[in-house]
Amino acid sequence: MPELRRDPTTDKWVIIATERAARPSDFKQEEEMLGAPDKCPFCEGNENKTPPEITSIRKEGTLPNSPGWEIRVIPNKFPALTIEGEANRHGKGVYDEMNGIGAHEIIIESPLHNASLETLPLEHVQKILWTFKERLLDLRKDPRLKYILIFKNKGRRAGASLEHTHSQLIATPILPDLVKNELNIASRYYEFKDRCLYCDIISQEKEENKRVILDNEKFIAITPFASIVPFEVMVLPKTHLSDYSQIKLSELNDLAEIIQGTLKLLNKVVPNVSYNFYIHTSSLDDLSVPFYHWHIEILPRLTHTAGFEWGSGLYINPLPPETAAIFLSEAKKED
Amino acid sequence: MPELRRDPTTDKWVIIATERAARPSDFKQEEEMLGAPDKCPFCEGNENKTPPEITSIRKEGTLPNSPGWEIRVIPNKFPALTIEGEANRHGKGVYDEMNGIGAHEIIIESPLHNASLETLPLEHVQKILWTFKERLLDLRKDPRLKYILIFKNKGRRAGASLEHTHSQLIATPILPDLVKNELNIASRYYEFKDRCLYCDIISQEKEENKRVILDNEKFIAITPFASIVPFEVMVLPKTHLSDYSQIKLSELNDLAEIIQGTLKLLNKVVPNVSYNFYIHTSSLDDLSVPFYHWHIEILPRLTHTAGFEWGSGLYINPLPPETAAIFLSEAKKED
Repeated sequence: MPELRRDPTTDKWVIIATERAARPSDFKQEEEMLGAPDKCPFCEGNENKTPPEITSIRKEGTLPNSPGWEIRVIPNKFPALTIEGEANRHGKGVYDEMNGIGAHEIIIESPLHNASLETLPLEHVQKILWTFKERLLDLRKDPRLKYILIFKNKGRRAGASLEHTHSQLIATPILPDLVKNELNIASRYYEFKDRCLYCDIISQEKEENKRVILDNEKFIAITPFASIVPFEVMVLPKTHLSDYSQIKLSELNDLAEIIQGTLKLLNKVVPNVSYNFYIHTSSLDDLSVPFYHWHIEILPRLTHTAGFEWGSGLYINPLPPETAAIFLSEAKKED
Repeated sequence: MPELRRDPTTDKWVIIATERAARPSDFKQEEEMLGAPDKCPFCEGNENKTPPEITSIRKEGTLPNSPGWEIRVIPNKFPALTIEGEANRHGKGVYDEMNGIGAHEIIIESPLHNASLETLPLEHVQKILWTFKERLLDLRKDPRLKYILIFKNKGRRAGASLEHTHSQLIATPILPDLVKNELNIASRYYEFKDRCLYCDIISQEKEENKRVILDNEKFIAITPFASIVPFEVMVLPKTHLSDYSQIKLSELNDLAEIIQGTLKLLNKVVPNVSYNFYIHTSSLDDLSVPFYHWHIEILPRLTHTAGFEWGSGLYINPLPPETAAIFLSEAKKED
């Protein structure tokens, strides 16, 4: 019989189809090429094809917007939100609107077209993760901004339009709905229990040991109890921390190891998997809180959302997370 | 400058990209065939390829599960939720779960493989809409069910796995998150204003007349102010009614006309458009309420959801609904 499970972090139910057991081969994806490297605006040597860089990690002595960089942050050429102007909140009858101010940046993760988070040296992945922190610290100086979401779209099915490895960041003048919801739920839980919900999840997951896929001194990766899609993975710091930007240099190695390790396993189980990932961290209005716990969500894009999901908000996941964890753990043994 | 708009029915913000003005040709879709008609389990003559029918509209003298039908309702062969059993709600540590009981039915809308809501005779569309009502009235007798969502997936991009025209219904033992949210918001609005939010929307839309695409005596179709996708359309009854199943026979013609008219316009603007639609109606626990107003949402599937949407709940819509309304109205003139 299928199961209905509730995600304690979102209060949303999901339908887990326990009988129609899916196998990784059900989700096979074709290799998709997204454009020729020679015309790629993110490749080294093509710096003039992008807006001027905001920051970069580059060889000493090289000039901004010229070759010699390892990681490069640029404004999105087609931003969803723009940096100039004021929010100008206003209403008209039943409707509310404001100007679309904010920031939309691209973090080009490597000068090499065919690099990926799965294959880059671990020290390079650490520098990417450190760049995320630096961008959060810089952008939060702007008092018009309420939230900064760092995310990645890998593969066309995940919404990527350029193949060259990159992440993005959108800073918004409002607290996004899903983040607000998580903060409210975690805050209510804390009021009730005097404990962080996510710390409780980690401790229950370690005890049950059915959904843990990777684990090191400082981080843990699990397939969430109420995963909305097959092979969903959540990465959490083991020590309570609400604000990603307070991550320490000494923790980066463990985080890079867990993220790269997870992506490698996903790619073994479903070669060329398209995925989205995003970082959920605390709100800019309230950075250090006892009730929230930053985390990374990795969502492989293997299934289609259809009318039922759009109309109900309930997802149908054909792969129980416990089974996903078994497939991922078996892939580990193949090393 | 892009705009942030809030949907008053969901309290969710959307980013409307007003500058990067999209045109219908940006969303062109290839024609996708989803399998050969001769093997189609929904075609007349193949009744033995489906589970036994629950109900049908058929020629007098013909037997169930044999040819002679116009509309046929069957259980889904691979149901997301199953009809037998009890909910058996229980918890385990931080997690909640229950059995996946409910109903999952298919409404085969025509015996002809290549029929569609766009091309079927209006009287036939009326019969489909009446069948929806009959299924709601029948299923609500089951006290384990809290909600019944009727929806349609048209085209592979909308999640359809069979081409033959059909709708679906999933009845759930919980009130789905998105419906609960709409009911809460509408109820708060009513408490505050003593008016139905949706009635207020209809009256403002008629007055502004920038987003109305079709309109007859009893129904209105608009591109919502905070549309989350290009060419989103919402259909509402002009007279307040919370419960779809209280629709009268005398109103069916107008509803069929608006729905078929909208789908014809969408197909003119984006040929072979894939779309989802769903009916939002009141909860089974509280059918006739002054604050809620049933409606149909039609969501063309022209854009990809990516990491930003998954992480924030905020959609980026590259086509302002006012522009969508202009394109759809121009298509009307071509008749």
